[in-house]
Amino acid sequence: LNSFGKIFRVNIFGESHGPSVGIVVDGCPAGIPLAAEDFFTDIERRKGGTQKGTTPRKEDDLPVFLSGVFNDKTTGAPLTIVFENKNTRSADYEKLRSFPRPGHADFVASQKFGGYEDYRGGGHFSGRLTVCLVAAGVVAKKILLMANPALSCVASILEVGGESDVELGVQKAIDAKDSIGGVVECVVKNLSLGVGEPFFDSVESVISHAVFAIPAIKGIEFGSGFAAAKMFGSQHNDALENKEGKTTTNFSGGVVGGISNGNDLVFRVVVKPTSSTPKEQQTLNIQTDTIETFSVKGRHDLCIALRVPVVLEAVTAFVLADLLMLEQQVARR
Amino acid sequence: LNSFGKIFRVNIFGESHGPSVGIVVDGCPAGIPLAAEDFFTDIERRKGGTQKGTTPRKEDDLPVFLSGVFNDKTTGAPLTIVFENKNTRSADYEKLRSFPRPGHADFVASQKFGGYEDYRGGGHFSGRLTVCLVAAGVVAKKILLMANPALSCVASILEVGGESDVELGVQKAIDAKDSIGGVVECVVKNLSLGVGEPFFDSVESVISHAVFAIPAIKGIEFGSGFAAAKMFGSQHNDALENKEGKTTTNFSGGVVGGISNGNDLVFRVVVKPTSSTPKEQQTLNIQTDTIETFSVKGRHDLCIALRVPVVLEAVTAFVLADLLMLEQQVARR
Amino acid sequence: LNSFGKIFRVNIFGESHGPSVGIVVDGCPAGIPLAAEDFFTDIERRKGGTQKGTTPRKEDDLPVFLSGVFNDKTTGAPLTIVFENKNTRSADYEKLRSFPRPGHADFVASQKFGGYEDYRGGGHFSGRLTVCLVAAGVVAKKILLMANPALSCVASILEVGGESDVELGVQKAIDAKDSIGGVVECVVKNLSLGVGEPFFDSVESVISHAVFAIPAIKGIEFGSGFAAAKMFGSQHNDALENKEGKTTTNFSGGVVGGISNGNDLVFRVVVKPTSSTPKEQQTLNIQTDTIETFSVKGRHDLCIALRVPVVLEAVTAFVLADLLMLEQQVARR
Amino acid sequence: LNSFGKIFRVNIFGESHGPSVGIVVDGCPAGIPLAAEDFFTDIERRKGGTQKGTTPRKEDDLPVFLSGVFNDKTTGAPLTIVFENKNTRSADYEKLRSFPRPGHADFVASQKFGGYEDYRGGGHFSGRLTVCLVAAGVVAKKILLMANPALSCVASILEVGGESDVELGVQKAIDAKDSIGGVVECVVKNLSLGVGEPFFDSVESVISHAVFAIPAIKGIEFGSGFAAAKMFGSQHNDALENKEGKTTTNFSGGVVGGISNGNDLVFRVVVKPTSSTPKEQQTLNIQTDTIETFSVKGRHDLCIALRVPVVLEAVTAFVLADLLMLEQQVARR
Repeated sequence: LNSFGKIFRVNIFGESHGPSVGIVVDGCPAGIPLAAEDFFTDIERRKGGTQKGTTPRKEDDLPVFLSGVFNDKTTGAPLTIVFENKNTRSADYEKLRSFPRPGHADFVASQKFGGYEDYRGGGHFSGRLTVCLVAAGVVAKKILLMANPALSCVASILEVGGESDVELGVQKAIDAKDSIGGVVECVVKNLSLGVGEPFFDSVESVISHAVFAIPAIKGIEFGSGFAAAKMFGSQHNDALENKEGKTTTNFSGGVVGGISNGNDLVFRVVVKPTSSTPKEQQTLNIQTDTIETFSVKGRHDLCIALRVPVVLEAVTAFVLADLLMLEQQVARR
Repeated sequence: LNSFGKIFRVNIFGESHGPSVGIVVDGCPAGIPLAAEDFFTDIERRKGGTQKGTTPRKEDDLPVFLSGVFNDKTTGAPLTIVFENKNTRSADYEKLRSFPRPGHADFVASQKFGGYEDYRGGGHFSGRLTVCLVAAGVVAKKILLMANPALSCVASILEVGGESDVELGVQKAIDAKDSIGGVVECVVKNLSLGVGEPFFDSVESVISHAVFAIPAIKGIEFGSGFAAAKMFGSQHNDALENKEGKTTTNFSGGVVGGISNGNDLVFRVVVKPTSSTPKEQQTLNIQTDTIETFSVKGRHDLCIALRVPVVLEAVTAFVLADLLMLEQQVARR
Repeated sequence: LNSFGKIFRVNIFGESHGPSVGIVVDGCPAGIPLAAEDFFTDIERRKGGTQKGTTPRKEDDLPVFLSGVFNDKTTGAPLTIVFENKNTRSADYEKLRSFPRPGHADFVASQKFGGYEDYRGGGHFSGRLTVCLVAAGVVAKKILLMANPALSCVASILEVGGESDVELGVQKAIDAKDSIGGVVECVVKNLSLGVGEPFFDSVESVISHAVFAIPAIKGIEFGSGFAAAKMFGSQHNDALENKEGKTTTNFSGGVVGGISNGNDLVFRVVVKPTSSTPKEQQTLNIQTDTIETFSVKGRHDLCIALRVPVVLEAVTAFVLADLLMLEQQVARR
Repeated sequence: LNSFGKIFRVNIFGESHGPSVGIVVDGCPAGIPLAAEDFFTDIERRKGGTQKGTTPRKEDDLPVFLSGVFNDKTTGAPLTIVFENKNTRSADYEKLRSFPRPGHADFVASQKFGGYEDYRGGGHFSGRLTVCLVAAGVVAKKILLMANPALSCVASILEVGGESDVELGVQKAIDAKDSIGGVVECVVKNLSLGVGEPFFDSVESVISHAVFAIPAIKGIEFGSGFAAAKMFGSQHNDALENKEGKTTTNFSGGVVGGISNGNDLVFRVVVKPTSSTPKEQQTLNIQTDTIETFSVKGRHDLCIALRVPVVLEAVTAFVLADLLMLEQQVARR
């Protein structure tokens, strides 16, 4: 459902064109300094309009604290942060109700929720909700750094449309008047050894669980990932180098037996091409039951992967904050 | 930790060389016919020794019902099934305590659990525990079929060592006197539309969560998966064909917006090469703090991927049973 | 922590003197008609100032929907409702920081949260948060009625200060210039047989869990309750009268073996006297470490029990909504 | 369902006349010394046959460790303990299938589980399962003592049949050829201040949740309990005496605002008279749909309250172990 985490528990709510989107973080430790400014950098990184290939829709995206902050510090009570939806143009979407947009959740959502879902702009399924993930990530990153100032969690674009040069990949899409996919990699440095709770809550399990909540993600791999299918065991095994757990190679991506091993945690995700492509498409008109030509208007990213890194960092951060709290390496108070 | 599922909840316990391994399934509907024979086929499929490249260790693997079955039907109370560990050779492992086996959980487990873990044969991290997953899968498959007799969930080897011909791939490993990785695909047919609980409990989220509990899995992709990174949106979008949700292509792998869309659910996992390779390896002797040459003796699979299909089906089955119960498409009584 | 329920999950947030208090209900079925007006009656019942013995503080207490409602119906996405805190007089409380109010959470909260808690007006521990419970109850009652129009859930004052005549009991407190306790009873009629999930989630277990979240509750008893201690088994046993489960007596309070038995669900709670009594009290000045005479100023209820019935109904309603959803007697869509 | 706790999680399984009953404790810290002998005292205290008014049925009740123990210490993996059911006389129960025993779960269980439940001896609803609670309590008590050697958790009979002299109360039942109820009190000394997780997981909430899982409990009260209904606030408020939280009185029972306040945690439960009374009763024959005279044969306690203290201690212990682990006052490793 709409919450994640065992102790540091992130609840997410809101729809693209409703009054607001937001989070309630339950189990947030008390005493963490928190101000609106702390969110600006990551929220800015998530926004469109700042680089080629992203949507011009802009929100102020000012975090408003409804609860859990007092004298600029967290209180230990639930932390509620909302972002108002100001810049919505619902009329764009109303007329498209007959055409469930290909690649979008429109059709399945309507079937699942009996037509009661807020369908405007994708509603609860909109990429708009990733601002909530980013906000939870800002809080989580603070917690991680308080526990270990050396820890870093950085995600970056690995390729767009098969090009490691991002601009080249985006240009492909522009030239084709189409949208395009990409790959994003996340690396966590200085994560302590011993994090992860097998059997079922392995590091890979909980990270992938949360990561697949990010819209458009269709795959995840750790360390050598799918390349391991072609490797021999003697190649893939990372030999232990010292008693701190350092290994000579890192094909495991920093996780063995579901537990962090003290090396860099490394994983990659694939982001499908934005479903809202400028290209004309054939799709079903569910009113008339005929296949018609259709094209998505409105403001959209050509390559949604470009906006994923900060979201991926955020998700990774709150997953790790929860695991470290479980492992009692992050104090609850 | 060691349980999975919201309503149909699978708890797993046991160690490779302890008295037994087993499951407690909480939330299992009452009235499901269940006998030891129902488990034989899938347990046999999981066993080694039946094909080239798998370990000769054999267990009777007779499921023993400790609770939850009465007059050969489930009662609605917790279902407990144990498998005795009969054929263990602990002495093989005792002497290796100084050498944490590369690629195995030995070292991290020892660090995490303060040396108190049962290290014999990998203990709680052993592949032995997959018999528990298989058992839970047998029960879950029954439930799925009772809800929808047309539903099928079938996993198969896609490639070994880069070869789609399995025997060729295994022969590579034999020739190299090494272990080898592989790719396994799972296809679920006739899954109803509307399954999955976004925001956080998307179909991809919960399946990947459970799948990464299977030892040796290092990646998962749905539908087009990582290939989507190179695709255009107009290619990747699956056009709706009719009001039942059928699409012309299935690049989404049967999931949009985290919800099943009525087409085949398709995903692939990569299985790393067995960590226990016959090849000599360099690794740390943690007693002497020196790098030494080391080789794993004992009985091991050259390609653990060969034993994954039935485990993958099982995990998929109990994840879907839980989602369908949440969706009230499977009766709890 | 701050959420309750397995499927119909109520999250609560806010502090007495912060910007707002509110709820996020996850797992709320789609299609339930919901408007601000639906909340007025129960919110009014909860308010003080309308009867002798309750506080004159009044809030507009207008529910504001932040998410989960579209075209005046629930969408199936998380339902967020907030109540602004308008009428706060924080200055009343600032000066009392040295005197943890006897009977209040001030001291333990400060110790537990390291002094970071919002202490104004009791903060997150304030009775103010019961407006959130009431709001969740309004939604839950609607769901219960849609599942079974004959179901009713009614709580009433049984006694105040030992008097079954409420006004007499309150007058006792007025005469004594003190606050006073009371007993409230809740009766649920036409609850279907078979609700409750033993072993651990018996009807008594989950109701009492939620009920003890209501501030000032110090005890709960079902059916004959504490009187059962003096009864013989032949008296206490409720004889079955017909196959629908009707019993001749109802000493069990409608629950046997943790499961509803088709008779009225009956339980009582004791509400301690309001901690904020007008009487002077001796207490510790934690700044000076001396015992001093202290008296609570400000607006307070003489008998908080008077405001409990609607809250108790609300809590009972959302507990039962969750159990009925688990039992699949309430549709999730 | 059948598990309790957030981190220290107790799963319970088994039926009275099935092969065995048992527990899986997930989240048990590693390194706790554990041997069968550690269980003997508490298991003996729970057994019948040792005092007037309890059943002569005796089990060896030898705990068998199936997992999670290695070299006589816990490993950190799930701890599975089973107790075989050896001394069962199922024939006693088969013939009573037409007569749901008054006061027992027979009828509701049959309705809820569609007749598939194991009805022999009460099946999963049998008091037999309290041996599982006791076992979990033995482990939990060890953990509590390791965290704080001064902590004690002791329950005792307060009254039987209205008599504070237990033997007098039991004699009443013997004279009346009937069963009788009682009250049991539990006192926890030296529990640290700050335990409990409001809003919903107050100390009272989680203790009462677990306590109502014990068969036959019909009420619980903390501190002054129901007597608070007749008290004034100035009487009931416990004045703070020093900065450690010591109060002059303890009407709150050691919990304010849902959080332990450093004083003794005190609560009482009422135990209804044993449903299986030797007295003849009128009840429904569900085969013939007529009211008939019926009497319970077999081995039964006249006063089940006599066996409750050790169970109540056990439940309290594992609830507190979980809360202290959440509060990070008990190390997970």
